[in-house]
Amino acid sequence: MSDLKLYNTLSRQKESFEPITADHVGLYVCGPTVYSDVHLGNCRTFISFDIIYRYLRYLGYKVRYVRNITDAGHLEGDRDEGDDKFSKKARLERLEPMEIVQRYTVGFHKVMQLFNNEPPTIEPTATGHITEQIRMAQQIIDNGYGYVVNGTVYFDVEKYNKEKHYGILTNRKLEDLLEGTRELGGQDEKKGRLDFALWIKAGPEHLMQWPSPWGMGFPGWHIECSAMATHLLGETIDIHCGGGDLVFPHHECEIAQSETVTRRQPFANFWVHVAMVGYEGEKMSKSLGNLVMVRELLTDYSPDAVRLYLAQHHYRQPWEDRASQLEQAAVMVQK
Amino acid sequence: MSDLKLYNTLSRQKESFEPITADHVGLYVCGPTVYSDVHLGNCRTFISFDIIYRYLRYLGYKVRYVRNITDAGHLEGDRDEGDDKFSKKARLERLEPMEIVQRYTVGFHKVMQLFNNEPPTIEPTATGHITEQIRMAQQIIDNGYGYVVNGTVYFDVEKYNKEKHYGILTNRKLEDLLEGTRELGGQDEKKGRLDFALWIKAGPEHLMQWPSPWGMGFPGWHIECSAMATHLLGETIDIHCGGGDLVFPHHECEIAQSETVTRRQPFANFWVHVAMVGYEGEKMSKSLGNLVMVRELLTDYSPDAVRLYLAQHHYRQPWEDRASQLEQAAVMVQK
Repeated sequence: MSDLKLYNTLSRQKESFEPITADHVGLYVCGPTVYSDVHLGNCRTFISFDIIYRYLRYLGYKVRYVRNITDAGHLEGDRDEGDDKFSKKARLERLEPMEIVQRYTVGFHKVMQLFNNEPPTIEPTATGHITEQIRMAQQIIDNGYGYVVNGTVYFDVEKYNKEKHYGILTNRKLEDLLEGTRELGGQDEKKGRLDFALWIKAGPEHLMQWPSPWGMGFPGWHIECSAMATHLLGETIDIHCGGGDLVFPHHECEIAQSETVTRRQPFANFWVHVAMVGYEGEKMSKSLGNLVMVRELLTDYSPDAVRLYLAQHHYRQPWEDRASQLEQAAVMVQK
Repeated sequence: MSDLKLYNTLSRQKESFEPITADHVGLYVCGPTVYSDVHLGNCRTFISFDIIYRYLRYLGYKVRYVRNITDAGHLEGDRDEGDDKFSKKARLERLEPMEIVQRYTVGFHKVMQLFNNEPPTIEPTATGHITEQIRMAQQIIDNGYGYVVNGTVYFDVEKYNKEKHYGILTNRKLEDLLEGTRELGGQDEKKGRLDFALWIKAGPEHLMQWPSPWGMGFPGWHIECSAMATHLLGETIDIHCGGGDLVFPHHECEIAQSETVTRRQPFANFWVHVAMVGYEGEKMSKSLGNLVMVRELLTDYSPDAVRLYLAQHHYRQPWEDRASQLEQAAVMVQK
């Protein structure tokens, strides 16, 4: 095998890649949440990992490439209707979250196909791993790092940090993280401000909910990837990937959850992150309302031009979306 | 709305279609088992239902079109390796059923897309509804129609038949069905020869298994569609579809399971079945080894020609695959 060097977010340096099992690579990529269309930043991320996946295979590795679909979204019914009215509505007239999931999953696959991205070898869904997520939350409780309040299960970050380092991926101390944390939901229930939910109690307005040892509820976002990655790739993963906006808190929480259950360290040998795409000096994000949607670009440019445009920038470099560079890429593709 | 007439397998006659909820149609189609490539017969089935789906929308109905993916297959590990050796194998070197599921799901979607079939509005998976299937099996036990033997849950067909009619879809009496039934697995455990498994106890060789009130196991095939259809479309379904080979026992079992739980009759107002495709005087089937694979046809003919070829035959008419008719369709498409 060739001497592949990869920048590892965990060690903050380039390292020679060695797989855990000879000739095999376990690759986990945090996939899309299928509640909206994909934007340019998402595509940069998935195209970058497609290139890494292809290169690993080119080197001769047999790659198990897992990219999940986050479909256990927490769509809520119309509260104004009240629980009773809602349940009296005919089933077919009600909002069915899985229709939304299907619409955006089909859309996502279409875009990935247009960009000539290979499909992952496994594409697990959060709703397809409810029992695995419940089991993991239970194991975290059993091992002393989870606690239940009113049907919601929380992870005890400060207890975890006494033995290990919560903040290892971002290279920050717990005290600094505590200072920088906004007040969020469940504050009254939680022991510590950084504690996060492994399982969330559902109210009648939650359209997707499942039975659990703690009552009806739905999984917290972070537990999904820990449960699926360990279930499909084993207790230690070769390479764990995602967009740069997932380093904290998502990946930090994944590490804490997984290592608490497997009692192995590290959860992933390599962490690879793709830098964000900016737009006119700002971060491109849903909340700023400045997302460049791929659908719009593809009305004017070929998928190959957009792929080249995205691949021209090194995946670890943040950059600004610029129409002029896209024009150049379009010309290059036609040459 | 126009006066749509549909042949109903349940009543064995054409009936005027009326939806349960005004302007809405709940349509359930038994989808593919993603453990092999699709053959010509499968494609005829799915193209026929695509045409029915499009026509319902053309009539102005809002259609919730559910077509499932059967992915809780029961792949077994290599028994020769023994349980211990198997579990010692590195995770990445082991057969992972979800890789097979993904390969054939991607292939199935590709073929459906080539044929210009619309995707269903919801595409649920069996693995995504394990908790719903367990709940339904438990309800069947609670209502007195299910019994547990050694971690496997069976449906008591003869008890059900005392009040209702097992065989209603095929218009046959229980006594006749009993006579025509081969001896199958689990014979020693079952009370009656027609009893079928709702939940099956897993051995160490079963690669996909889930925790349940009856121990580790996996769902029986029939319960999947009952659980997903009632979960997504309600207790009574407007139109339930499938290939003609599914009438017995699959759809008969679906009716028995669903009506035992919902205590409503009928489970589906309309049952629509597509006749099988024959080949040289025989049924086209995996066991006879005479399947015409779509992949092969598409090397010589355009998807439009194959779609026309399949759509030329009325969906309730059995017919024989004939290369000459495919040639004609290819000519017509080019005209």
